[in-house]
Amino acid sequence: MTKIITISREFGSGGRELGKRLADNLGFAYYDREIIDAIAEKSNLDKSYVETVLSQGNFHNFHYTVGRTFSMSTPLQSTVDMLITERNVINELATKQDCVIVGRGADVILREFNPLNIFVYADMPSKIERCRSRTPKNENLSDRQLIKEIRKIDKTRSKHHELLSGAKWGDKENYNLCINTTGLQLEKLSVVLTQYAKLWLEQNKK
Amino acid sequence: MTKIITISREFGSGGRELGKRLADNLGFAYYDREIIDAIAEKSNLDKSYVETVLSQGNFHNFHYTVGRTFSMSTPLQSTVDMLITERNVINELATKQDCVIVGRGADVILREFNPLNIFVYADMPSKIERCRSRTPKNENLSDRQLIKEIRKIDKTRSKHHELLSGAKWGDKENYNLCINTTGLQLEKLSVVLTQYAKLWLEQNKK
Repeated sequence: MTKIITISREFGSGGRELGKRLADNLGFAYYDREIIDAIAEKSNLDKSYVETVLSQGNFHNFHYTVGRTFSMSTPLQSTVDMLITERNVINELATKQDCVIVGRGADVILREFNPLNIFVYADMPSKIERCRSRTPKNENLSDRQLIKEIRKIDKTRSKHHELLSGAKWGDKENYNLCINTTGLQLEKLSVVLTQYAKLWLEQNKK
Repeated sequence: MTKIITISREFGSGGRELGKRLADNLGFAYYDREIIDAIAEKSNLDKSYVETVLSQGNFHNFHYTVGRTFSMSTPLQSTVDMLITERNVINELATKQDCVIVGRGADVILREFNPLNIFVYADMPSKIERCRSRTPKNENLSDRQLIKEIRKIDKTRSKHHELLSGAKWGDKENYNLCINTTGLQLEKLSVVLTQYAKLWLEQNKK
């Protein structure tokens, strides 16, 4: 069976970079946006539309969103289909080779693979700083606006997770390791995290 | 300023052993029961009494406990004194030398030292197994009784923490790292944890 590491992360915590570095250090495949692309291709839908539905929290608002984007006869069914396709895509990717998967509820979807589940988080000032340095457009937002944006994205991730598992996103009981990146250089942290992942994968052989 | 690592842990998670190994690996002092001993000495009270009050959750039940153990004129005041002594003892120990402190709300009490705060937890079956192997008397308890005991002790730790900080014990936001020991050998895990602690202490110099 393939070795799977899932990274769940708060927006602005550096989880994506940490996941990418971890994959590189271990020689594992890395999947993030690749999943959106594959869903779009399989569903014959526009990538940005798939991303809107899956990443921006419109699970509770199917008709409205779909109605504004496309004209469909059964919008709710389409969204459910998209979520099923997402599940299938993640399963297919995980079966192919050892990999690190960021987000998308992979920790729940791939439960049978006995994945190493890592949650990455950070203190709010640290997340604000990372958001500002990463995205120039964020320069124009006040701290308050940025905090609102961060919370909104995290709420969506939480909702997505709850839809799949019923369990609460970010509750440490659902993860093997929860790591606060505040005050740490991600490059150096990824070296230690790689050692930890090697140990965990070695001691939890399938 | 001294370097401080605090370990908060669920009962049966192996947090104490992990803390001891971490201290040994780093060449730091290690404080656990030493704190109870020092409080008893300073308060001129029996060690087991101090432990009962501080470790077994009688914060909500001052009169009853003290009434059964000693005859005191102001039992509530004595318990408050004991908690103040605990705070002072922990501060004194932390000022003396680099150390790992297990439990006792040290993560909150030593906030000014900017400690590295680690929370150690585990899945329930793993905690039951560790409790059985560690304490022969637990052999006679059913799983259900043992789970009840584990939850009771953790509830006390949670109450102690809440009393000191108002913040919830075990909420990942209050820690730098939360580590689930399920399926991991503590000796090997402590090696990786030592690397992490060195990195954190290096990057968060005071």
